Amino acid sequence: MLIVKKFGGSSVADKEKIFNVAHRIADEYKKGNEVVVVLSAMGKQTDLLLAQAKEINPNASKREIDMLLTTGEQVSVSLMAMALDYLGVPAVSLNAFQVAMHTTRVYGNSRLKRIDTERIHNELQNKRVVIVTGFQGVNKYDDYTTLGRGGSDTTAVALAAALHADACEIYTDVEGIYTADPRIVPTARKLNEITYDEMLELASLGAGVLHNRSVEMAKKYGVQLVVRSSLNLSEGTVVKEEVKMEKMLVSGVACDKNTARIAVIGLEDQPGVAFKLFHHLARHNVNVDIILQSVGRDGTKDISFTVKEDDLDEAVAILERHGSSSLKCQKIDTERNVAKVSIVGAGMMSNAGVAAKMFEALYDVGVNIKMISTSEIRVTVLIDEQHADKAMNAVHEKFLLS
Amino acid sequence: MLIVKKFGGSSVADKEKIFNVAHRIADEYKKGNEVVVVLSAMGKQTDLLLAQAKEINPNASKREIDMLLTTGEQVSVSLMAMALDYLGVPAVSLNAFQVAMHTTRVYGNSRLKRIDTERIHNELQNKRVVIVTGFQGVNKYDDYTTLGRGGSDTTAVALAAALHADACEIYTDVEGIYTADPRIVPTARKLNEITYDEMLELASLGAGVLHNRSVEMAKKYGVQLVVRSSLNLSEGTVVKEEVKMEKMLVSGVACDKNTARIAVIGLEDQPGVAFKLFHHLARHNVNVDIILQSVGRDGTKDISFTVKEDDLDEAVAILERHGSSSLKCQKIDTERNVAKVSIVGAGMMSNAGVAAKMFEALYDVGVNIKMISTSEIRVTVLIDEQHADKAMNAVHEKFLLS
Repeated sequence: MLIVKKFGGSSVADKEKIFNVAHRIADEYKKGNEVVVVLSAMGKQTDLLLAQAKEINPNASKREIDMLLTTGEQVSVSLMAMALDYLGVPAVSLNAFQVAMHTTRVYGNSRLKRIDTERIHNELQNKRVVIVTGFQGVNKYDDYTTLGRGGSDTTAVALAAALHADACEIYTDVEGIYTADPRIVPTARKLNEITYDEMLELASLGAGVLHNRSVEMAKKYGVQLVVRSSLNLSEGTVVKEEVKMEKMLVSGVACDKNTARIAVIGLEDQPGVAFKLFHHLARHNVNVDIILQSVGRDGTKDISFTVKEDDLDEAVAILERHGSSSLKCQKIDTERNVAKVSIVGAGMMSNAGVAAKMFEALYDVGVNIKMISTSEIRVTVLIDEQHADKAMNAVHEKFLLS
Repeated sequence: MLIVKKFGGSSVADKEKIFNVAHRIADEYKKGNEVVVVLSAMGKQTDLLLAQAKEINPNASKREIDMLLTTGEQVSVSLMAMALDYLGVPAVSLNAFQVAMHTTRVYGNSRLKRIDTERIHNELQNKRVVIVTGFQGVNKYDDYTTLGRGGSDTTAVALAAALHADACEIYTDVEGIYTADPRIVPTARKLNEITYDEMLELASLGAGVLHNRSVEMAKKYGVQLVVRSSLNLSEGTVVKEEVKMEKMLVSGVACDKNTARIAVIGLEDQPGVAFKLFHHLARHNVNVDIILQSVGRDGTKDISFTVKEDDLDEAVAILERHGSSSLKCQKIDTERNVAKVSIVGAGMMSNAGVAAKMFEALYDVGVNIKMISTSEIRVTVLIDEQHADKAMNAVHEKFLLS
C-alpha cells in the first residue's frame, strides 16, 4: 500500500510531538507500506515569520513573504527525517523545488497545477519514507509560492492523486469531523462518514478541519480521505463520494467568525456595476461570499457582501481606489463583528422546510438574521458575532439531537 | 559598475542591523550601480538550527542538516528584500535553486562548481537589487548542500567571478585585515593591502576574517576583494595579487585555537602506512594540518598531526575503526588544549632567519613549542592553548612593532 499522511503544525510543534508522529510513521513503514508524509511548519512558526516580515515592512510583497514562509516547512521536514533516521527508518525530506510542485503564478494563494512524481517514486523504491513540505509550490518563474492557509491538506491530496495512493490520511488535533465544533457545542457528535459535497460546504464555511481546496481536489480525483487524530488511534471520519448510512437531514453546523460585511450604498443603477465591483475584487484575489443586492434611494442600488475579515481592509481600499472612476457610490459601510452560521446536509436536497426550521431555531433564542444565503445542501445566515455560540447550539439542538 | 557585497550573520542579526545594511545597499544602487548582495543567516541562527537538529538526532545525516541549515539564509535574504522594498529600492531574493548554484556532491562541506547567471542578469536588467543566499548550493541529486563555515564569502567571490563584477566587498564587524587579532593583541594595526597568498595563509590559520576557500577562488579568478566594516565607511583592506607598498617581512600574526593534536604511536614501519592513515581521514572529509613523523621504539614509527578540534572525535573514531585491520598501532594519544600561532608574510621568501626570530620571541616569554610547520611565506608553531595570547603578543611585538 502507498499511503499519504499529512500532519499539521500542532502535531510537529516540538521534539516530543515530532517523535510521536515519527513513531506512527515508523509503524506504518514497518508493516511494509510505502509512506509519503506531508508536513506543515512547526507550531506557530508561520505566524512568527509573518510577524517578522511585518516588522520589517508592513506592505512586504507576497513574493518575498512566500520566500520567507516556505522555510517553515523545510525546517519541519528535515527535522522529521532526522527523527525517523534516529528510529532506524530511512527517510528523505523534499521541498517544493525537489519534488517539484508546479503551481500557478500567483503568490500567497497559489494553486497546484502539476506534481512531478519521479523523484518521490525513486526514493520510495529505495525503501525510504518521503517527507514533503506542505503548503508550498514553485511557479513558472522558478519562485516559491504558497497555497494559502491550510494548504498542506491540498498538498497531501494532490500527492495522493498524483501517486495513485491507496489512502490519504489527514491527521489533526480532533478525532474527525463533528456535527459542530465541540468547543462551542458540547453535544456535538463525531461523524463516521461524510460526502465530499457536505465537507466542502463545511470547510468553506469555517468548520476549520479541512482546507476546502483540498476537498475539491479530493472530489475531482476521487481521493478518499480519512480525517483522524494524531494523538490516538481512533478511526476518524471518512470523506468520500457517497455515504451509505441513512441520510441525515443535516450532518453538521458550522460557524465562521472570520467574516466581515461590506455595504456599497448608492451605486448608479447601470448595467455592469456589479460586474465591475466584483471584477476589481477578484483581480486582487479577494474572495466574496454572500452577496445581496437591493434597490436604494433615488434610483440607485445597494450591494452588500461578505468577505474574510482579514481581507476587509484590502477590499475597502480596492473599492475606494476605483470609487472615483468606474465605481461611483455614495458611501461604503463595513461591519466587522458578524459571523456566519450554516447548516449542511446532503439530505436537505429532498427535504423542504429545512431553512424555515433553522430560522425558527434562531428566532427561539432571539437571534436576528442580517443576511441569508442558500445552496442545494446548505443554509447560511449572517448574524452578530456575539450571538454565534448561542445560535450554533440552538441550531444543533434543533437538527441533530432530535 | 556591477558590485557584489557580502554581509555576514552579525550584520543582519536584527531589524535595526538589516536596515543599516539596506541603507548601504540603497546608497550604492542610487549611484546607478548594479548590486548583487550575498547574505549569511541572521545572527546565531545557524547555531540554533544545529542545536535543534542535535536535540532530535545527535547523529543526523549531513544531507538533512544541510536541508535544515539552508533555511537560515533564505530567511535573511527575503527579509532584506522586504527592507529594500520599504526603502523604495526594487529587490528580489534568490536561493541556491533559483540562481542556480551547482556544487559537488558532498554535504556539509561542498564546493561550488558552476553558477548560472541568467536569472541574476535578468533581474539586474530589470533594475532590481539581487539578494542571494550565501553558504548554500545544490548538487547533482537536486539536494541542498552547504559550503562549510564561512562559505558565504566563497559564494560572494564565486558570484563576482561568474558575473565579471567590478568589485567584491566583504563586510564584517572589523575594519579590515589586521596584523593580529586586536582583541588579543592591542597594538595590532590595520593593513591597507595584502596579497592573496598572505591572506590565504592567514585565513587558513584562523585569522577568522575570510573563509580560505573564498581567497583561493579570488586568487584563481583574479577577483580583487575588499574587506571592510559594515558599521562605518572606513576604507578596509584590499586583497590582491601584488602589493605595491614596501614589503614588510611579516604582515600578520594569526592564532587558531580550534586545533587538536593526535599522535598515532607504534605504527608498523611498512610502506603505505601514512597513506592509509590519511586516506581514511580524507575520505571522511577530515582535514589534517601539521604532520610530523618520527621513529618509535622497536622498529615502529609514530605519526602526529593536527586536526580541527571539532573533527577530533570523528578522526579518532575513524582511526579506531580501521585500527583492527589495516592500521595497527600501539595507541592513539590526543591533546585538545593546543593552539597554532603563525606568522605570515610574502617578504619572508627572500629573508632568512625569520623562523629563528619567531622562536626567539617565544623563548623570551617561556613558551614551549610542540610542533613546527613552515611554508614559503609562513611559520606555524603548535603550543599550549593557555599560552596562545602571550605568544601572539610576543611575536607581534618582535616583527610588527619594530
